[in-house]
Amino acid sequence: MSFSKTHRLLLGLGAISGVVTFYYTNNQKKSSACFMDNKLYTVTVCEMGRQLGSVSIKGRLQAEYTGIRLKELGFPYTAMIKSTMTRAQETGDIISLSVPDVPVTNCDLLREGAPIPPEPPLGRYKPEIYKFYQDGSRIEAAFRKYFYRAEPCQEKDTYTLLVCHANVIRYFVCRALQFPAEAWLRLSLNHASITWITITPGGRCVLRVLGDSGHMPPNVITTT
Amino acid sequence: MSFSKTHRLLLGLGAISGVVTFYYTNNQKKSSACFMDNKLYTVTVCEMGRQLGSVSIKGRLQAEYTGIRLKELGFPYTAMIKSTMTRAQETGDIISLSVPDVPVTNCDLLREGAPIPPEPPLGRYKPEIYKFYQDGSRIEAAFRKYFYRAEPCQEKDTYTLLVCHANVIRYFVCRALQFPAEAWLRLSLNHASITWITITPGGRCVLRVLGDSGHMPPNVITTT
Repeated sequence: MSFSKTHRLLLGLGAISGVVTFYYTNNQKKSSACFMDNKLYTVTVCEMGRQLGSVSIKGRLQAEYTGIRLKELGFPYTAMIKSTMTRAQETGDIISLSVPDVPVTNCDLLREGAPIPPEPPLGRYKPEIYKFYQDGSRIEAAFRKYFYRAEPCQEKDTYTLLVCHANVIRYFVCRALQFPAEAWLRLSLNHASITWITITPGGRCVLRVLGDSGHMPPNVITTT
Repeated sequence: MSFSKTHRLLLGLGAISGVVTFYYTNNQKKSSACFMDNKLYTVTVCEMGRQLGSVSIKGRLQAEYTGIRLKELGFPYTAMIKSTMTRAQETGDIISLSVPDVPVTNCDLLREGAPIPPEPPLGRYKPEIYKFYQDGSRIEAAFRKYFYRAEPCQEKDTYTLLVCHANVIRYFVCRALQFPAEAWLRLSLNHASITWITITPGGRCVLRVLGDSGHMPPNVITTT
């Protein structure tokens, strides 16, 4: 099969216009890229008390210490989003006493649950299998809702406080870092500890701290 | 194909002896298993000063705070192993002032290096490729030297302090948790922060804290 001169010219022009379009759209993407970080500070809820779902006296102390530490760190927190479970609400309320200017919202997606069957399995942790289907998709939805790179129009870094539960945070960490999600039980979190993930403009996720409770006296620390 | 009565009897006896042998050897394994944890507390070295390899004035403060915190936590530390680089030696010396009874040894395997080409690559981090071959195998040897489940004869949990460098610790964390080792740069560590990994008798590795520097005032904190 052979081409006439006109055909070859047309093909050449087509190829060039393809390259130009690719270069243009690619540059468009670059020029609309964001330059800000999204920083997510997750706070594990406090120790539970004997009263159903409520935090213990030690738990209240833990939240107070964490609130004070968050204030001391002095970041311009953009928002606080709390799980709607009682202990998360209480933890968030106590933290809000230290950072009263941070606007608070609630989110059902952040409630505690069973994100995915853990690998390796843990003997004593055996929720009903349907829980993984129900909670897993909800917690994944929460991850997709809160973990994204900054919008192109964003002019400042965001500092979002998520007050939620140990399983949820551990799943978030694995997903954000592109580790296997079923590894979430290889991480452990102290009550009211601070975990910090930064998402850079390029979409790079960095775990800066996991389960920081160095701001609490050792006798107050309990683990989930 | 049919079996005579004698054949069936022999096959039955064979199967039973198989089950008995399996049960016996399995129980043997259990009885010789360990019941203690190996807990590894790694401390990232402090901020470097302008003087070649030495820690800065802020770095000294960081190490002091970390020494005090380690003492405050009150664990019966079994040993401290320091990298032989100047800044690790100095960090360890300052920490030793707070926990003077902990026996100290040095280890060349723990020196800073380039463990493995990181994924995703980081623009500004581009060591010569031969460094990954040299340092990588050394750091892997360090991992195999210090990360193992407790010996069967061990009667107490061990609490080992490793004073070493950010790249080394990040590689250790990835390897211990069976995450891809090339993910080490997705983790970030503050200077003189505490990272804690527990190895249970069953060989389960749990990351309990990563990069805890909550015991330092915010103005002292610097990152690697």
